Amino acid sequence: MSDLLWPGDHRAGDLFTDAAVVAAMIRVEHAWLTALAELGVAGLTVPDDLGALVSPEDLPALAAGAESGGNPLIPLLTLLRARLRGRHTAAAGWLHKGLTSQDVVDTAIVLCLREAGDRIRADLVTQIGLLSRLTDEHRETRMAGRTLTQHAIPITFGLKAAGWLTGVLDARDQLAAAARLPVQVGGAAGSLAAPAALTGDPGRARELVAATARHLGLPPREPWHTSRAPLTRIADAFVTCTDAWGKIANDVLVGARPEVHELIEGAARGKGGSSAMPNKQNPVHAVLIKRAALAGPPLAALVHAGAAAAVDERPDGGWHVEWATLRTLARRTVVAGAQTAELLAGLRVDAGKMLATLHEARPGIDAEQQSIDPGGAPDRPYPGATEEIIDAVLARAEAEPR
Amino acid sequence: MSDLLWPGDHRAGDLFTDAAVVAAMIRVEHAWLTALAELGVAGLTVPDDLGALVSPEDLPALAAGAESGGNPLIPLLTLLRARLRGRHTAAAGWLHKGLTSQDVVDTAIVLCLREAGDRIRADLVTQIGLLSRLTDEHRETRMAGRTLTQHAIPITFGLKAAGWLTGVLDARDQLAAAARLPVQVGGAAGSLAAPAALTGDPGRARELVAATARHLGLPPREPWHTSRAPLTRIADAFVTCTDAWGKIANDVLVGARPEVHELIEGAARGKGGSSAMPNKQNPVHAVLIKRAALAGPPLAALVHAGAAAAVDERPDGGWHVEWATLRTLARRTVVAGAQTAELLAGLRVDAGKMLATLHEARPGIDAEQQSIDPGGAPDRPYPGATEEIIDAVLARAEAEPR
Amino acid sequence: MSDLLWPGDHRAGDLFTDAAVVAAMIRVEHAWLTALAELGVAGLTVPDDLGALVSPEDLPALAAGAESGGNPLIPLLTLLRARLRGRHTAAAGWLHKGLTSQDVVDTAIVLCLREAGDRIRADLVTQIGLLSRLTDEHRETRMAGRTLTQHAIPITFGLKAAGWLTGVLDARDQLAAAARLPVQVGGAAGSLAAPAALTGDPGRARELVAATARHLGLPPREPWHTSRAPLTRIADAFVTCTDAWGKIANDVLVGARPEVHELIEGAARGKGGSSAMPNKQNPVHAVLIKRAALAGPPLAALVHAGAAAAVDERPDGGWHVEWATLRTLARRTVVAGAQTAELLAGLRVDAGKMLATLHEARPGIDAEQQSIDPGGAPDRPYPGATEEIIDAVLARAEAEPR
Amino acid sequence: MSDLLWPGDHRAGDLFTDAAVVAAMIRVEHAWLTALAELGVAGLTVPDDLGALVSPEDLPALAAGAESGGNPLIPLLTLLRARLRGRHTAAAGWLHKGLTSQDVVDTAIVLCLREAGDRIRADLVTQIGLLSRLTDEHRETRMAGRTLTQHAIPITFGLKAAGWLTGVLDARDQLAAAARLPVQVGGAAGSLAAPAALTGDPGRARELVAATARHLGLPPREPWHTSRAPLTRIADAFVTCTDAWGKIANDVLVGARPEVHELIEGAARGKGGSSAMPNKQNPVHAVLIKRAALAGPPLAALVHAGAAAAVDERPDGGWHVEWATLRTLARRTVVAGAQTAELLAGLRVDAGKMLATLHEARPGIDAEQQSIDPGGAPDRPYPGATEEIIDAVLARAEAEPR
Repeated sequence: MSDLLWPGDHRAGDLFTDAAVVAAMIRVEHAWLTALAELGVAGLTVPDDLGALVSPEDLPALAAGAESGGNPLIPLLTLLRARLRGRHTAAAGWLHKGLTSQDVVDTAIVLCLREAGDRIRADLVTQIGLLSRLTDEHRETRMAGRTLTQHAIPITFGLKAAGWLTGVLDARDQLAAAARLPVQVGGAAGSLAAPAALTGDPGRARELVAATARHLGLPPREPWHTSRAPLTRIADAFVTCTDAWGKIANDVLVGARPEVHELIEGAARGKGGSSAMPNKQNPVHAVLIKRAALAGPPLAALVHAGAAAAVDERPDGGWHVEWATLRTLARRTVVAGAQTAELLAGLRVDAGKMLATLHEARPGIDAEQQSIDPGGAPDRPYPGATEEIIDAVLARAEAEPR
Repeated sequence: MSDLLWPGDHRAGDLFTDAAVVAAMIRVEHAWLTALAELGVAGLTVPDDLGALVSPEDLPALAAGAESGGNPLIPLLTLLRARLRGRHTAAAGWLHKGLTSQDVVDTAIVLCLREAGDRIRADLVTQIGLLSRLTDEHRETRMAGRTLTQHAIPITFGLKAAGWLTGVLDARDQLAAAARLPVQVGGAAGSLAAPAALTGDPGRARELVAATARHLGLPPREPWHTSRAPLTRIADAFVTCTDAWGKIANDVLVGARPEVHELIEGAARGKGGSSAMPNKQNPVHAVLIKRAALAGPPLAALVHAGAAAAVDERPDGGWHVEWATLRTLARRTVVAGAQTAELLAGLRVDAGKMLATLHEARPGIDAEQQSIDPGGAPDRPYPGATEEIIDAVLARAEAEPR
Repeated sequence: MSDLLWPGDHRAGDLFTDAAVVAAMIRVEHAWLTALAELGVAGLTVPDDLGALVSPEDLPALAAGAESGGNPLIPLLTLLRARLRGRHTAAAGWLHKGLTSQDVVDTAIVLCLREAGDRIRADLVTQIGLLSRLTDEHRETRMAGRTLTQHAIPITFGLKAAGWLTGVLDARDQLAAAARLPVQVGGAAGSLAAPAALTGDPGRARELVAATARHLGLPPREPWHTSRAPLTRIADAFVTCTDAWGKIANDVLVGARPEVHELIEGAARGKGGSSAMPNKQNPVHAVLIKRAALAGPPLAALVHAGAAAAVDERPDGGWHVEWATLRTLARRTVVAGAQTAELLAGLRVDAGKMLATLHEARPGIDAEQQSIDPGGAPDRPYPGATEEIIDAVLARAEAEPR
Repeated sequence: MSDLLWPGDHRAGDLFTDAAVVAAMIRVEHAWLTALAELGVAGLTVPDDLGALVSPEDLPALAAGAESGGNPLIPLLTLLRARLRGRHTAAAGWLHKGLTSQDVVDTAIVLCLREAGDRIRADLVTQIGLLSRLTDEHRETRMAGRTLTQHAIPITFGLKAAGWLTGVLDARDQLAAAARLPVQVGGAAGSLAAPAALTGDPGRARELVAATARHLGLPPREPWHTSRAPLTRIADAFVTCTDAWGKIANDVLVGARPEVHELIEGAARGKGGSSAMPNKQNPVHAVLIKRAALAGPPLAALVHAGAAAAVDERPDGGWHVEWATLRTLARRTVVAGAQTAELLAGLRVDAGKMLATLHEARPGIDAEQQSIDPGGAPDRPYPGATEEIIDAVLARAEAEPR
C-alpha cells in the first residue's frame, strides 16, 4: 500500500491494508472454527491455512462486493465457502456458524488496531530513550524560554526536552491502557443466541467466545456491538500521541527558522530538498508530523460521532463509519511515530546559538529575576528547580506505564 | 447562569460560570499565599476570605479586562491588589509572587473540571442503579432485536438495557481515571525559577507546589504548561459519557415513535408539549440528550487541536482555546447526565407492545433459529446467553471502576 | 453579556445574547401578527411594543422553561400571552396563531445571524481598506520570502499583504452570498396548513409569509425546516473569515518573534502585559485571533452534523444543536473581526529589519535567481510580477463582491 | 482503486487515485511546457504524451519518494527528467522551469476536484429528475407528518420529497459556485519571480499562467498559495451535498423500519443480505449514505483547519494536510451521490401503509386542525399550501443554479 498524498505512508507498510483486514477476518473465522472443533461442537478438522484461499487478486472483487451487503465480511464468506467446498466440505459448512458479520469485522479491526498499537508503542519506547538522553545531556544548555512567542525567562534545553518527554509519557500511559482491546463476539443481536443453540448451552457458548479470544490473544468481554468505548478510547490515545509529537514538531519548526537556528532537523541525502530552490533545507519531518497532528482530532471525533449514533442492536451507519476512519488514524499515527523517532534521533541542537540568543535577549529576559532579586549580578543563573524536574521526569520515563 | 439556546443548561447551575472561575482562581492564589506563609517564605497572615473582595458586579469589567493581557487572571490580580492594599498590605505584596498567569488559570480550570467530574460521577452512579434495575427487571421481557433498522432475532429488553449499562460503565471507568486532574504550577517557563529564587532553594520551591496542591486537594505533578494530556483526557472522558447516553437516547427515540411505541419517555407536567399541536407528547429529554451527543465530539477535538498546537513554553493560541471549550463541554455533559438520569428514572417500558411486535415479526425473525435448529416449535425461546451476559454486566456494575 | 474565558467577547456586545434572541423571537411574532392584521385575517390592533412585555429579569425563567418543551419559544409564548391578556386580549388570542415553534426560533436566529453578518461585513470593509493601504505602501519593502519556515526567495511585504488581502476578499465574497438568509415559516410540518386554514386560501397563507418576511427585511423562501443549507452556508462563511484572519495572525506571530522582529503588534496601554514578566510585550491580538481560527472549523462542522442528522418534518436533536453553536460561532467571528481590524490598524512594519534579514539570507536566498540567470549582479532585484499581482488584488478590493 | 473498508468506494473508480494525481501533475507540467513553447520562451517541441513516461509500477516508488521532499511532485520530476533525457533533452531541461512544487500539486488537485465536481453534478442532475418525479407523483399521497419523532399533522409524501429536493437544489447551487476552481501558479513565493526572469517581463510571466490555465480549461487567478478559500469552499459544497443526502437517508431508514414500512429501499439481487439472518433485507444504500453524511463534516473542518494554519509563503503542514483529506472527501461524495441516485431510482413508496398510519394517528394528528377549525368533518383535507410549495420547488428544479 502506498499513498502519494500522505507522504511517509509507506512506513506503515501492510498495516491495516485491505489485505491485512481480509487476513484478520480470516484469522477470526479460523479461531472460531478451531473453538468449535476443540469444544466438540463441530466434528471437523480445521484447515491449517484458510488465509491461503484468498489472494491479492481477489481484493478488488471483495471490496466491490462489500457494498451490496454493506460490509466486507459477506463477500469474503461467499468466496471462502466456494473455495473450501470440495476440499474441506465440513469446514465450508461450519464456517462462520453462530457468528454475525459484526463479530468478525469488529474483532478483525481489533487485531489490526492491536498491531498498530504495538508498533506505536515500540516507537514511543524509542522516543522515550532519545528524549531521556536529550533531556539529560542538555540539562545545562541555556536558552531563552519563550511564552506567547516572546522571550520570557532563561531556561535550559533540557527542561524543554523534559516537557516533550512528559507529553510522550502521557501518550504512552494512555495507549497502554487503551490498547488492551477485547474480542467482540455476540452473535446476531448480542445474545449469543446462535452459539447457544449450536452448543445447546449458554455456558458453552461463552466458552466458545473465550476460546476464540484465547486463540487470538485477546481479552474476553461481554458483547459490545453498540457500546463502542473500546474503539473511541484507542482513537483518543492515538490522538494523544500525535498531540505530543505535534508539540515537538512545532518547537522544531520554530527552532529551525533561520533567524532562530537553535534546532536543526537532521538531513539525510535528498531529504528536505526543493523543486525550485537548491538552497533550501526544509524541516520535512517536522512539517509532516505537524500535518498529522492537525489531522488526528477530527478523525477521533468521527469515531466518537459514530459511537454516539449507535442505535438498535447494530447501528445503521454509526458502525460503518468506524472502519476506514480507524484505519486512516492508525496508519497515520504509526507513520508520525516513526517520523518523530527519526526526527529526534537526528536532531541537532545548536547550543551556541541558544546561548547567543539568550545574551541578546538581555536585559529584558532577566526582568522577572531582577524583580525578585534586585541588585544581583547580571547573567547569574536562574535555574529554579530544573534539575529536580528533569530528574522526576526521567524517573517516570524509567517506570512502568501507569 | 442560563442559556436560552441550550435548554437544560440551568441544571449545571453555577458550575464553571465566570463567577466560579474567578472564585477558583482566587482559591489558587489563596492556596499559594498560604503555602508561602506556612513554609515561612512570606511573613504574612493570609486573609481568610479573599473571595469576598470580588463581587458579581466586578465580572463584566474583569471579562472585558481579560483581553488586553490575553487571559482572565491579569485583571483579577489588579483588582485584588487594589482591594488588599491598605487592608492587607503584605498580602497585596505577596499575592501571586512566584506564579505565572497560566499556573493560576490552569489550576482554576482543573478545580472547575473536578467539580464537573464529581457531578457527572454522581449522575453516573444514579444511572447505573437505574439501569441495573431495568436490566434485571426485564431479563425476560421479550422484544424484537433490530440490526440496520430491521428485525433480526428475538432478544429481551433486559439485554438491551445491559448494553446501555455497558456503555455507562465504560464511561464511568474512563472518567474515574481522567478525573484525577493534577495541580499545574511551574512559574513563568515551567522551571519554578521564581519560587526557587524566593525560597533560595529548588526543593522548597517544589514544597510550595506540593503544599498548594494539598490545600486544593489535587495531586502534585511536574509542570505541564505545554503537555496537555490531562485536559484532553478528561474531555475525551466527557465525550465517552455523551456517547453512551446518546445510544440510550437514540433507542428511546426509536422506541417512542408511535408506530413502535415500546419505550415512552415519562411525562412531567408541561414537558414535551408543542406550541402548535396540543396532541404531541415529545420525547424531549431524549432529543436534548441526542443533541448533546452530537455536540460533544467536535468540542473534545478542539481541546486536542489546542494541545497539538502547543509551542514554546506557553502556546500562542493553543492554550487560549481550551478554556471556553472545556467549560462548554463540561456544563453540557453535566446537563446531559442529569437528563439521562431523569429519562431512565421515568422511562416506561411497554412490554405488551414489545411482545406484539415480536409476534408480528414472525416468521422472519425466527429465520436464524430455524436455520440452526430446523423443525423446532414456532415461538420457542431463543435466549442464548442472555442471562449470563446480564449477570456479568450487573456484576461489573457492582464492582469498582477499573 | 461577557465571557471571562473568551477574552474579547465583550466586543460582540448584545449580539445574539439571550435577551437579543428573545427580542428577535418577539419581532417575528410581531411581524406575523402584523401580517395577520394587514391581510385582514385577524381583526386586531397590533400592540406597538411587544418587546416591552419582557424584561431582563424574565430571562433566567425563560431559559429554564425552555427545557420542558425543548425550545425557547414555548415558555416565551406562555409569558407573552399572560401579559397580553387583559390589556390586549385579541393579540393574546392571535399571537403565534398559524406558526410553529421552529418558524419563530429559526427566523429569530436568522435575524441574529444577519446582524452578525452586518457587523462582520463592516469589519471586513475596514480590513480591506487597511490591507489595501499596507499592500500599496509596501510594494517595494523588500523582505525574505519563506516557505516551509525556510528562506526561499526575496519578496516584498506588499506582496505578502496582498496575499492577506486575497484571503479577506474571498471571505467577503462568501459572506456576501451567504448572508442573505431567508425567512423560515412553514407551520407545523412545512405545509402552511394552519395559515391556509386560518385564511381559507393557500395563496393568502403564502402572502402572510411574504408580508412577514417583508416586515423583517428578509427574502422569502419555501419552508426549509429540514434542509439547512442556509445555516451551514453562513457558518462556512464565518469560518472562511477566521481562516483568512488566522493566516494574518500566524504571520504576525512569526514576525513578532524577537529573532525575526519584522512585524510588531501595536501596543495600547496595558495591552500585552504579563502577570510575572514586566519585560514582555505579547502580540495578544494575534494570539486571540489564532485562537478563534482554531475554534471555528469544529463549530461549523457541528452545524453540518446537525443538518446531516435531520429527519422527519422536524429533527429530533439535529435542529436543537444548531442554536448555541451558531451563536458561539457568530459572536466569536465578530470578536475576531474586530480584533483583526485593530491588529491591522496598529501593525508596525520594521522595513529595516526585513531588509537586514534579507541580506543575511544571502547568498542562499538568491539561489533560484542564480540558477535562472547565472552571473547577474548580487542583490539585483527579483520582483517577478509583484507589481501586477498587487494591482490586480487592489482592483479586486475596489470591486463589488462577486 | 478499491477500499474494502468503505463499501461502495469502487464507484469512484480512478478518480483522484495516486495514478490520477500523477497524471494530473503531468498535465500541469505539460501545459506549462506548452505555454513556454507557445510564447517563445523555450525553444522546444513539447513531447505529446508525457504521461506515458510513467507507469503504474512507478507509483509505489513515487509515493515512498514523496516523503523526503515532503510532496509528491519532487520524485515525479526526478523520474520524468531521467526518462526525458536522451529522448527529449530540451524538454528535460525546460520541464518545471519557473514553477514551484506547490503550483503543480495545487493545480493537479484542482483538476481532480473538478472531475469530482463534474461527476457529482451529473448525479445531482439525476437526483433532481428523480426527486421532481417523486414530488409530482406523490403530491396527494397522504401520510403522517412527524416532528420530534411524533405524529404532528397530515402531510403528503410529495411535500416530503419536495423538502428532499430543496436540500439537493441547495447543494447543486453551492457546488456550481464552488466548482469553478482556478489555476494556482505563482512560483517559489507567489511573485512569479522565476517566470518573469525567464521571460524578462512580468506581463509575459502572467501570460504564461493564463496560457497554462487555458490549456487546462481553468479560470486564471492571482496566486493563492496561502489563501485557501477555493479549496475550503468546494469542501464545504461537498458536505452540503452529503448533508442533503443524509436527510433523505435518515427518512428512508425511518420509513424502512418494519413498524413504519412506508419507504422500502429497492432490492437488487444479493443486496441487503445478512451473513447470519436469511430473513433480512437491509436498507444498505441508506445506511451507507448516512455513514457518508456522518463522515463529511470533520473532513471539511480539517480542510479549514489547514487553511487557518497557513503561514509564510508556503505553510509548514497546513498545506500538506489538504491533499489526502480532499481526496477522501471527494471520492466519498462521489460514491454517496451515486448511491443516492440509485436509492431514489429504486425507492418504493407504500402509499397504502402511509394512509393506514395516518388513520391510526387520528384523532391526535388532527388536533391542530381542530383547534383552528373546530367542528369540521373528521378526515377532511388539511393540505395547506402543499400544491403551491411543490410547484415552487419544482420550478426551482427547472431553473439554472443561482
